[in-house]
Amino acid sequence: MSTEKLDNFKQSGDYIQSLDRGLQVIQAFSQQNSALTVSNAAKLTGLSRPTVRRILLTLEHLGFAESTNGVFSLTARTLTLGYAYLSSNNTWSIAHPFMRDFVNQTGESCSISILDGPEIIYVARVSTKRIMSINIDVGTRLPAYATSMGHVLLAGLPEEELKNYFDSNDFTKFTDNTIQSKEHLLEVLKGVRENNWGGVDQQLEEGLRSIAVPIRNLHGKVIAAINCSVHAGRISRDVLQDRFLPQLQETAEKISKAMSTTNNSRFI
Amino acid sequence: MSTEKLDNFKQSGDYIQSLDRGLQVIQAFSQQNSALTVSNAAKLTGLSRPTVRRILLTLEHLGFAESTNGVFSLTARTLTLGYAYLSSNNTWSIAHPFMRDFVNQTGESCSISILDGPEIIYVARVSTKRIMSINIDVGTRLPAYATSMGHVLLAGLPEEELKNYFDSNDFTKFTDNTIQSKEHLLEVLKGVRENNWGGVDQQLEEGLRSIAVPIRNLHGKVIAAINCSVHAGRISRDVLQDRFLPQLQETAEKISKAMSTTNNSRFI
Repeated sequence: MSTEKLDNFKQSGDYIQSLDRGLQVIQAFSQQNSALTVSNAAKLTGLSRPTVRRILLTLEHLGFAESTNGVFSLTARTLTLGYAYLSSNNTWSIAHPFMRDFVNQTGESCSISILDGPEIIYVARVSTKRIMSINIDVGTRLPAYATSMGHVLLAGLPEEELKNYFDSNDFTKFTDNTIQSKEHLLEVLKGVRENNWGGVDQQLEEGLRSIAVPIRNLHGKVIAAINCSVHAGRISRDVLQDRFLPQLQETAEKISKAMSTTNNSRFI
Repeated sequence: MSTEKLDNFKQSGDYIQSLDRGLQVIQAFSQQNSALTVSNAAKLTGLSRPTVRRILLTLEHLGFAESTNGVFSLTARTLTLGYAYLSSNNTWSIAHPFMRDFVNQTGESCSISILDGPEIIYVARVSTKRIMSINIDVGTRLPAYATSMGHVLLAGLPEEELKNYFDSNDFTKFTDNTIQSKEHLLEVLKGVRENNWGGVDQQLEEGLRSIAVPIRNLHGKVIAAINCSVHAGRISRDVLQDRFLPQLQETAEKISKAMSTTNNSRFI
């Protein structure tokens, strides 16, 4: 949805502003902001304090939030909102057994994500049993330009949508390796299209290295990306590319095939 | 929150009805109802069609839903609502390493849940690599009276809250073993309090057997339950009780201890 379309919709009689604002307040909670006062939440969302107060009280009375001395936090009931998506979409549970096989073979974690605006969203993840594992949950959002799955997903976009991406994206610098320009990213995406895989080396975070390949539907359209992410100190680029990449490609093919044979209109 | 309190709140000027209704529509989507027309969603929620139409259009324009020919489904962006809770609450990530150890030792799945009204909500889960694994995601809701974790959580409630539970609960019959009366459940809860663990044998689903023990805070209050669920055909009651129960109890104690030593006000 482009910003312009959303702005037009907001002028229509169908837009429910308080639903929009309520969802904004839920999303204001995060690891850094696990407990929020009305003022904090107002600052984070840009909404007025009276509005935020009514939203938090409503969420509290509906059981989605709880408060102690004016400090609010979310409750587990919020999980049921995300669960509504997961349970209504069996696509990613189809992928799970194949992801597990990959993790067993390589001893490394494996995730699937899709593109949502300028970000990727993790929709499935199987992690290793290593204590120092990379801490990512389903639902995590990361900027597409700084991740291998993002590169694969952007490389699969039609030209018009890629243009929209560049209109809405900012290049924040996370490490010395982070891609910082449209030109650089376009060059990288060209390589991803030619090779049918993408890789980033510590572009998002020092010590984090990953490769990703596309998951395609019957018509060859990229519908998701699957990756393998490792600690740079433990796994070299060569091992990633020579040993893990062929296994990841095989996993993606199996998932594409399994999805095509299930009755899921989204992927036909 | 009792029904009465919620009703009173709804009369106040602070209640935002359209946020309440919007969250109801999101929760109407499920495995059985993965794609909904305005009519379907209206029927499931009991809301009027014009109201549901505006909600679905708003969700679509905000990127939480998508539609094809008037049929709506949720998008992965909905996951970010549940993720707001998960990322703002590090409690369950503290439990993960201990749950993994349990799963490695026993080869069986392990979950943690908390009580939410008459239901339990799964907040953490580590499953086995077995192909025929029990298919449950974080965010799943199940009726407390038919699950071992539910028994442990109900047994830990103060008397007044247990009374509220019975006021709000219906006993649906899932199998021949399902508890069907308040008296029977009270007797079971008495046993759970005495033994400090609970077990159900095919009360929710044929072939599903599980044991659960409480996770307590520093003051001994039950804050969550942890279980081990198995296929009845593969694991006998004796094996569950003699081999897995001691390991589950040890796991719960380690988690209680780890949570008490972290700076988490919710559990002090």
